[in-house]
Amino acid sequence: MTFAKVDTQVLEALRSALQQGEVLIGEDERRRYGHDETEDLSYPPDVVVRPRTTDEVARIVKVCALHHIPITPIGGRTGLSGGALCVHGGVGLAMDRMDSIEHIDERNLQVTVQPGVITQVLMDAVAEKGLYYAPDPSSKGSCTIGGNLAENAGGPRAVKYGVTRDFVLNLEVVLADGSVIWTGANTLKNATGYDLTRLMVGSEGTIGIITKAVLRLLPLPKASRLMLVPFNSATQACEAVSAVFRAGITPSAMEFMERDAIDFTLQHIEGVVLQVPPDVQAHLLIEVDGQHEDVLMRECETILGVMEAHGSGEVLFAETSAEKDALWKLRRNVAVAVKAHTVYKEEDTVVPRYALPQLLAGVKAIGSEYGFRSICYGHAGDGNLHINIIKEGLSDASWTDDLPKAIRELFELTVSLGGTLSGEHGIGLVQRPYMDIAFNARQLEVMRGIKTLFDPHGILNPSKVLP
Amino acid sequence: MTFAKVDTQVLEALRSALQQGEVLIGEDERRRYGHDETEDLSYPPDVVVRPRTTDEVARIVKVCALHHIPITPIGGRTGLSGGALCVHGGVGLAMDRMDSIEHIDERNLQVTVQPGVITQVLMDAVAEKGLYYAPDPSSKGSCTIGGNLAENAGGPRAVKYGVTRDFVLNLEVVLADGSVIWTGANTLKNATGYDLTRLMVGSEGTIGIITKAVLRLLPLPKASRLMLVPFNSATQACEAVSAVFRAGITPSAMEFMERDAIDFTLQHIEGVVLQVPPDVQAHLLIEVDGQHEDVLMRECETILGVMEAHGSGEVLFAETSAEKDALWKLRRNVAVAVKAHTVYKEEDTVVPRYALPQLLAGVKAIGSEYGFRSICYGHAGDGNLHINIIKEGLSDASWTDDLPKAIRELFELTVSLGGTLSGEHGIGLVQRPYMDIAFNARQLEVMRGIKTLFDPHGILNPSKVLP
Repeated sequence: MTFAKVDTQVLEALRSALQQGEVLIGEDERRRYGHDETEDLSYPPDVVVRPRTTDEVARIVKVCALHHIPITPIGGRTGLSGGALCVHGGVGLAMDRMDSIEHIDERNLQVTVQPGVITQVLMDAVAEKGLYYAPDPSSKGSCTIGGNLAENAGGPRAVKYGVTRDFVLNLEVVLADGSVIWTGANTLKNATGYDLTRLMVGSEGTIGIITKAVLRLLPLPKASRLMLVPFNSATQACEAVSAVFRAGITPSAMEFMERDAIDFTLQHIEGVVLQVPPDVQAHLLIEVDGQHEDVLMRECETILGVMEAHGSGEVLFAETSAEKDALWKLRRNVAVAVKAHTVYKEEDTVVPRYALPQLLAGVKAIGSEYGFRSICYGHAGDGNLHINIIKEGLSDASWTDDLPKAIRELFELTVSLGGTLSGEHGIGLVQRPYMDIAFNARQLEVMRGIKTLFDPHGILNPSKVLP
Repeated sequence: MTFAKVDTQVLEALRSALQQGEVLIGEDERRRYGHDETEDLSYPPDVVVRPRTTDEVARIVKVCALHHIPITPIGGRTGLSGGALCVHGGVGLAMDRMDSIEHIDERNLQVTVQPGVITQVLMDAVAEKGLYYAPDPSSKGSCTIGGNLAENAGGPRAVKYGVTRDFVLNLEVVLADGSVIWTGANTLKNATGYDLTRLMVGSEGTIGIITKAVLRLLPLPKASRLMLVPFNSATQACEAVSAVFRAGITPSAMEFMERDAIDFTLQHIEGVVLQVPPDVQAHLLIEVDGQHEDVLMRECETILGVMEAHGSGEVLFAETSAEKDALWKLRRNVAVAVKAHTVYKEEDTVVPRYALPQLLAGVKAIGSEYGFRSICYGHAGDGNLHINIIKEGLSDASWTDDLPKAIRELFELTVSLGGTLSGEHGIGLVQRPYMDIAFNARQLEVMRGIKTLFDPHGILNPSKVLP
């Protein structure tokens, strides 16, 4: 793919497109916006543009369309698939100044936001009104709603409440020609024309740039209970997961952590003390939430019965909100801990829930074959297993040449179990070479047709998603 | 649009395409498959084809593509927007023989079905295993999953559980060239490529023909409580609806019925006796469901408080399952009763929940202006109001010439309130002339682009959805 260069003329046009936003060309700023949390990859844009309004975004896109400059939307830079990396340079469209919560509609349980709002900021703002925005990626303190929409982000609570997609009512989108459309209506139900809203969600900025979102809210749950359940066998832990749902309970989180994930994380974070007996191989972190404390107690009892029937060790209940925070901190920091320890690659495989033990066993077998160690954890209730492959003793040659083969085997296994490449991180840059495992030529042709329809000149976040 | 005729050569090719299915050309059969429940419209296909397998569907589509014959999928013929009407003749693809429930996966809470399965049959089959398929259109006893998917059908329980779209994991689809693809994976989460699954849902057979669906299931709720709440003011009833959600309760149904809707229906159906005091103007039918009887009792108490605060009359609780059935029968038969009484048109407007009283008042004002009476009812919790406009004394000239203007005003009002044309019935044939109210030229251009991408020769259910 060849694009035009960002020259003085283009810079001038970009500056003219902005009234309140800014254009940055400094080395430091380009570098700062040139990475996300994907490995140690760095692809700085030629220029960082930080708009404040939809109108400014539309004008910037028109400049890029006219001059054939690639444009890549950039959110909180917490992505794990490289979706926001400016692999062809061009314009890095930083959305961090479009961070207004425009309207919390308490009557209709809706909120209208710009894409640069940080997810936790939104959650806190609506919680103050007794409302709940449920999707909670681990990076919720720094990721943005725009990025969550672009990647269709999940998080622990997706198992009960659904992923980002399930909370979207309507999107304002700037198309590749700079025109602005809304994708639907601000209604809970909609059977009016094609579902452009959900086509945009998860499209990673490749077919349109989301500039505003109307999101659905729920009443805030009044109470929650959290427990940590140890198992001497990771397989038994995974099997217990399916049994909980079959017992009629839908927990608000059902997380899985391998022994190593716990050990790594305990070393890395402060303020969390946990004695893990030597023979424990895995933990489940299970949360239930709702409006009635006594119901949660009953649900916990049922879950306890299921756990014991699957050979769990002694269950730890978080008694205070400080204890809850500590357990969640442990879970949310696994990836951070692994990253601090070693060079690694993270995969985001997802399978039907019951196939998780098979996937886990397969990951370990492939690891033995290729000589790499992996730290596995994730959202067991959704069958979503994060696999952190760590470099440690592996030679550079193995890491570069053999690992892609191992990852290919791993994805082939995932797909053979009825699963797919990514549950919540997206395809972005790094999973792109593996798309042929999940989709055949005809499926990819359909997706390419959509890309070309929306972005005929290929300027929107090029070289992402599709191989 | 001009298409080729179904001649002897085409008939021969269609017959050769089938191994187990059948080709019907009799007048009676063509007429039987030539209507749904939309007004008294009749558009028989030139030939009815009833395949049994995906492979047969693919081969039929190839015949149609080769000879340029329109092909319209036909489900349970309960549609209310004319989505299944063969307006250009051609092949009527009756899916009623593709009615196999292929696999109920109790471990993963999923079910794989052919599209011709009747919704109630599916609900019963999974209920036997303690599982729950929630979407329950009023026509659930005769509509099919394929039709539900095509129109993104809702129903009373959508307010808590979501619409058909929210239960779909993966679809097998025959494309316009006869190739067969799966749209996604059988996983609860999926961030892998564009969301073809949800693009297909609600596309009314215009961009692909759904031949198999993998649907998500839930644990079956163990208990429910149902109450009928009278109000002397329809506006107060609507306002009470929003207040229930703000009180932290999400009922499993929150239905609205105008006085006339109740009176019409009581006359029409047998076995339901209800004394409605003369000053009652509207009813809410409210259901809560869950795993614990005592919780439901508490929720009912909270709801009761909200209702009283909004001036409700004496609440009727259904004490037995026979009483529950009677109340649901009353609600589900409103449209049937109106239809039995008079020529009518049904609109399926949807607005943000709190705007419902304004919509209702506006409908009545437009009715006064144009001289028509309307019976209004629907899913108040979702802001989805069904408006049955009845002909009664209206002249044929007014019905034909003036009513479209009135409907246009009605939709303009709906959209001005943040709503849209259809909540759950789809656009099909009859709402198509009004699409310009919901969408501007650019939005429609994008949708037309999708149609052309998937169906370049325009053979899939032509003259539907897009104006």
